[in-house]
Amino acid sequence: MTDEEFDSDAVVTLEQGAGGKAMRDLVSEVLTAGLPDDSLDIGREAMDDGAVVPIGDRNVVFTTDSHVVHPPFFPGGDIGRLAVSGTVNDLAVMGATDVRALSSAVVVEAGYAESDLERIADSMARTCREADAAIVTGDTKVMGHGDLDGIVVNTTGVGVADHVVGDDGLSPDDVLVSTGEVGRHGVALLAEREGIDFGTTVESDVRPINGVVDRALSVAGADITAMKDPTRMGLAGAASEMATKGGVGIELRQDRIPVPSDVKGASEMLGLNPLQIANEGIALLGVRPTAAADVLAALRSHPDGQDAAAIGKAIDDEHGRVLLDTGLGTRYLREPATEPAPRIC
Amino acid sequence: MTDEEFDSDAVVTLEQGAGGKAMRDLVSEVLTAGLPDDSLDIGREAMDDGAVVPIGDRNVVFTTDSHVVHPPFFPGGDIGRLAVSGTVNDLAVMGATDVRALSSAVVVEAGYAESDLERIADSMARTCREADAAIVTGDTKVMGHGDLDGIVVNTTGVGVADHVVGDDGLSPDDVLVSTGEVGRHGVALLAEREGIDFGTTVESDVRPINGVVDRALSVAGADITAMKDPTRMGLAGAASEMATKGGVGIELRQDRIPVPSDVKGASEMLGLNPLQIANEGIALLGVRPTAAADVLAALRSHPDGQDAAAIGKAIDDEHGRVLLDTGLGTRYLREPATEPAPRIC
Repeated sequence: MTDEEFDSDAVVTLEQGAGGKAMRDLVSEVLTAGLPDDSLDIGREAMDDGAVVPIGDRNVVFTTDSHVVHPPFFPGGDIGRLAVSGTVNDLAVMGATDVRALSSAVVVEAGYAESDLERIADSMARTCREADAAIVTGDTKVMGHGDLDGIVVNTTGVGVADHVVGDDGLSPDDVLVSTGEVGRHGVALLAEREGIDFGTTVESDVRPINGVVDRALSVAGADITAMKDPTRMGLAGAASEMATKGGVGIELRQDRIPVPSDVKGASEMLGLNPLQIANEGIALLGVRPTAAADVLAALRSHPDGQDAAAIGKAIDDEHGRVLLDTGLGTRYLREPATEPAPRIC
Repeated sequence: MTDEEFDSDAVVTLEQGAGGKAMRDLVSEVLTAGLPDDSLDIGREAMDDGAVVPIGDRNVVFTTDSHVVHPPFFPGGDIGRLAVSGTVNDLAVMGATDVRALSSAVVVEAGYAESDLERIADSMARTCREADAAIVTGDTKVMGHGDLDGIVVNTTGVGVADHVVGDDGLSPDDVLVSTGEVGRHGVALLAEREGIDFGTTVESDVRPINGVVDRALSVAGADITAMKDPTRMGLAGAASEMATKGGVGIELRQDRIPVPSDVKGASEMLGLNPLQIANEGIALLGVRPTAAADVLAALRSHPDGQDAAAIGKAIDDEHGRVLLDTGLGTRYLREPATEPAPRIC
């Protein structure tokens, strides 16, 4: 069989949708083939959390996500809260904490309970209020029962950034800061799906973080060199991408990474590494060393930043790699090529 | 059974997704419940084709659509061309012919052929070039085989309008202009789906119309009082909405409405009224009588406006209703409460 014949039989796999390397390959090879991309500061080729579109004298940040999470209701959140938070957070980590408009496009299967749709809409409304954002336009489509399992919610956002922050700006010695605890979303989802009883219920961290990120930006401005939200591929995936794009290595200290004890216990039982699992309510910030103390204090002054911690730093070695200092030694922390959990967001 | 019990059992129906009155009721009752909506010139409550968001000194228009068309490849187009055109056209009919950015969020079932995905991506790229637009950010999710039939493409757009045009601006005596022929998209889709051979293949009109609409705006400016693209509910649906929102009646002359002969023949065999079926490549314009001749000449100077025609006018009577002068008499042209064809876009 020639390569060409092999390619013509190729099909999309679940792994390609999980947000890791396989998906980035699919997106860059297929979906961006031949699309024009001129005059953008951060466009598709950068594969950041969104794109920067200059309009008048403003830096408009534009980002989209479709949400297919299963189950749609889970401890700590639901697909509506996830959709609004996911889009607000992608704007925020590019510096656009000022969310100007959100759109909501819902595809639902015929037979879906209107009461569930109302719960989702109410949750989107509440989450918008938390983020000081508004859904200003929308679309609804219904697919036949059997053509779709449940509901798909797309949210797209437009924000304005005074100071655009990419995920590629790390320099050696920059301090890596997490705005909060790690591992909650993925563990909450998988525990709910597997129906495992850990004695306690792990809740997802899903929340809009533009408020807490804005605290950091307002004290440190350009001293925040890079930001990313560690969603589908977890802390390991986000740190790995920041290292690759910044042309640096990253050294993390395990004892500094805030992993809550219930997440530790549950992820052990599930056989998962909490550093490789999805978060929906935190950001990773690269901060110039001189500004790190101010940024930590600013983050901790916000209700969503109480657990903020300096978890490591960028190094001028091991470019593109993430090292984890466990206290007993140092090992590579790898980005999983495929995520073990489909439909986690 | 009390009303409350009845409501708690309510489910979404296919008819609610078809873009007619039932869908507007679902959207306004459920999906916009409690969402904040301040400081917008045209926001959700107007239920226009998009929302206007002031950023700096510019009028930014923002619109979203999810596309679930079945089959995804059809005579004259495919889901990719439809997605780009649909969003570009929703911007254009609000005056934002200057498309600044598009997003593309794809949800696809596991097992989907990569070659089909490439065809769709190539088609999106070609359609972007026609519209002088660019997809600048995207997202891909994969659902399990059996959880989704095929592919869902969401496109969201950001455009800038010098002069924002609503769909509510008609005044009595305004001339109603169609930029082109009526009925092609819906008939092409249904003929393909039913596998009926009419001796000739009706092709969809799906195309970006920001270029041809811009011609009209550049000669007439504020003399264009209202615009709408007659998509899911056809000419009848769009005219009916323009009449209701403008507080006028509309009188159409059947002999002036450009219905191509192949559409006439096919829609007779399918038992459909071409005035009630979807279009994806035309707009309806309300134009002050003094500017009508200039607008028609400008439209006809564009390759996509060769068939432009003045098809009727707004009247200060029969508010919210559309009258059709058939030559033998005048009858009401009703917006169907439900569209006969699901997954037409």
